[in-house]
Amino acid sequence: MTAAAPAFEPPPPRPGAPEPLAEPGVAELRLEQVLGALADPLRLAIVRKLLLESEEYDQPCGWFGIDRPKSSLTHHFKVLREAGVTRQRQYGLERRSQVRVADLELRFPGLLALIADWEPAEPR
Amino acid sequence: MTAAAPAFEPPPPRPGAPEPLAEPGVAELRLEQVLGALADPLRLAIVRKLLLESEEYDQPCGWFGIDRPKSSLTHHFKVLREAGVTRQRQYGLERRSQVRVADLELRFPGLLALIADWEPAEPR
Repeated sequence: MTAAAPAFEPPPPRPGAPEPLAEPGVAELRLEQVLGALADPLRLAIVRKLLLESEEYDQPCGWFGIDRPKSSLTHHFKVLREAGVTRQRQYGLERRSQVRVADLELRFPGLLALIADWEPAEPR
Repeated sequence: MTAAAPAFEPPPPRPGAPEPLAEPGVAELRLEQVLGALADPLRLAIVRKLLLESEEYDQPCGWFGIDRPKSSLTHHFKVLREAGVTRQRQYGLERRSQVRVADLELRFPGLLALIADWEPAEPR
């Protein structure tokens, strides 16, 4: 929502897309909770990939190519949604995610640009 | 370091100020660690007060007016320093803190502005 906001916005939802799962409203977003959800390299990697590589509207778990147990990924995606970083929709058995770009830019301008600039630490 | 960077910089160190305690170098700062240190309302409040109200170079614990046990405050100040958010100097028995404004603006432009805009949640 700032003049310098990068164009992270993914395509709009397809007609007939499922309703979003429960999430905090834009006025309920709390910086401490958003930062807490992002304070993890795996979750930063998820959000960064969604920001920079999403050509589809909602992305399924498998698209991320993260080699972790499904239960672990389910947890991380839930943390991001509950903090308000991502929106999730249920497609049959599968939950798909997108970043709440407009809401985050409105409440925390510049935060998404920091995530887009982030790079994983070198392996030791 | 950006054109829009707010003027958070506190006064320069006094001649003869003690050397800083151990801290990560500016190139070693990691977004995930900085966000983790900030993902706490008390620590956000500490950093925000340092940013907005610091007229002295280094601030002692008592200046913050936080009603918590000293051991708890010591822990929070250490978390902030080890993540690279603050710099601490030892004055006799007392550690005093300041925000690493220039380093954070250089590595994570805009992050300090988000903290300055933050307000504590309403008590429930």
